[in-house]
Amino acid sequence: MRLRNKPWADDFMHENNHVVVEEPFSKKENWNHEFTEDQPLHLEIGSGKGAFISGMGKQHPEINFIGIERVKSVIVGALRKVLDAQVSNVRLLNVDASDLRDLFGDNEVDQLYLNFSDPWPKSRHEKRRLTFHTFLEQYEAVLKPNGQIVMKTDNQHLFEYSLMSFSQYGCKIEEVNLDLHTLEDPYNVMTEYEEKFSNKGQPIYRCRVRFPSNPTD
Amino acid sequence: MRLRNKPWADDFMHENNHVVVEEPFSKKENWNHEFTEDQPLHLEIGSGKGAFISGMGKQHPEINFIGIERVKSVIVGALRKVLDAQVSNVRLLNVDASDLRDLFGDNEVDQLYLNFSDPWPKSRHEKRRLTFHTFLEQYEAVLKPNGQIVMKTDNQHLFEYSLMSFSQYGCKIEEVNLDLHTLEDPYNVMTEYEEKFSNKGQPIYRCRVRFPSNPTD
Repeated sequence: MRLRNKPWADDFMHENNHVVVEEPFSKKENWNHEFTEDQPLHLEIGSGKGAFISGMGKQHPEINFIGIERVKSVIVGALRKVLDAQVSNVRLLNVDASDLRDLFGDNEVDQLYLNFSDPWPKSRHEKRRLTFHTFLEQYEAVLKPNGQIVMKTDNQHLFEYSLMSFSQYGCKIEEVNLDLHTLEDPYNVMTEYEEKFSNKGQPIYRCRVRFPSNPTD
Repeated sequence: MRLRNKPWADDFMHENNHVVVEEPFSKKENWNHEFTEDQPLHLEIGSGKGAFISGMGKQHPEINFIGIERVKSVIVGALRKVLDAQVSNVRLLNVDASDLRDLFGDNEVDQLYLNFSDPWPKSRHEKRRLTFHTFLEQYEAVLKPNGQIVMKTDNQHLFEYSLMSFSQYGCKIEEVNLDLHTLEDPYNVMTEYEEKFSNKGQPIYRCRVRFPSNPTD
């Protein structure tokens, strides 16, 4: 699925450029103008096929959502879900966000989601994990003071690593859940991976962390 | 086992007062004099039947160990294990340590173990959990600067709570393990509970946390 070429993808995205934002780097510091309502902005890194971002958009009309997904053949699935959900508060970006600070100004984002990120299990790939400290620096820059990250994963080692990395960076852990689906959170919006792994009986981990209120702390 | 009366317990402990320390509150700030070697002091809160403290004593002759257990009918089991292990670096205290600062001076302890503590699952009992902030204040006082706590439990909710509580207090999380027995740590000394739950296939959680180097941080 991920590797299949989809030549119609560019046309489909262009036809729906009210959802898949073109030239997204030019929107930095002005993302509120891209939405019909000036309201809090939540960002998902790695939206995959879009179950989470479209579900959250529907559940929270009072929030604007941006989902970033670099794989073209995948983001078209997310686009379809956003269109089906008939929501006006979700935008998708088909970019490789190697540095979020190129896309967002300081304090422009209210909350950030990391869902089922690539675990990069080998030690030598540590710096590619989305909770490596160089990424946390980016998140801290674009998030508002006291901004939060909500992370979900089924990968035990990525979760262990991330809790340590957040803590060492100075983040405060506000919530930890080591088996999300026993919690029966009625507001939890599942991703595709989450539904698949959860159906297999694997625990899903979630945490919510907050950057220190004073970045110089 | 825990509730059965053991009238011989007092005699047994008194006969072995080189292990079960009498009048322990009088030893505050002078615990190094209770041991044959002046070396780092590690403390276990709630030693139960003593598998951990006796096993650690044997594995680490370069460390002095104190195990606290308030239940008399339980601590005699720990005493027997310490005697069987033929170690000279382990002491047991049969006290209710409601405030560790009554037993230990500032910076007197190098490391602290919380093994399979009572989870006190009801919210109204939160302040009885051994990782509630009032206990963390005690631990910080008696631990050396940068002193560490090593916690093990099979209880998911206690572990989730404790990670949050440590983090909110300002501790740094140095290690998290969400399924200790897949790690195959050859130096892990199991408690009785740990062996029982681990044999049932339940995950055992462990974390190691450090207090901030400057207590005023």
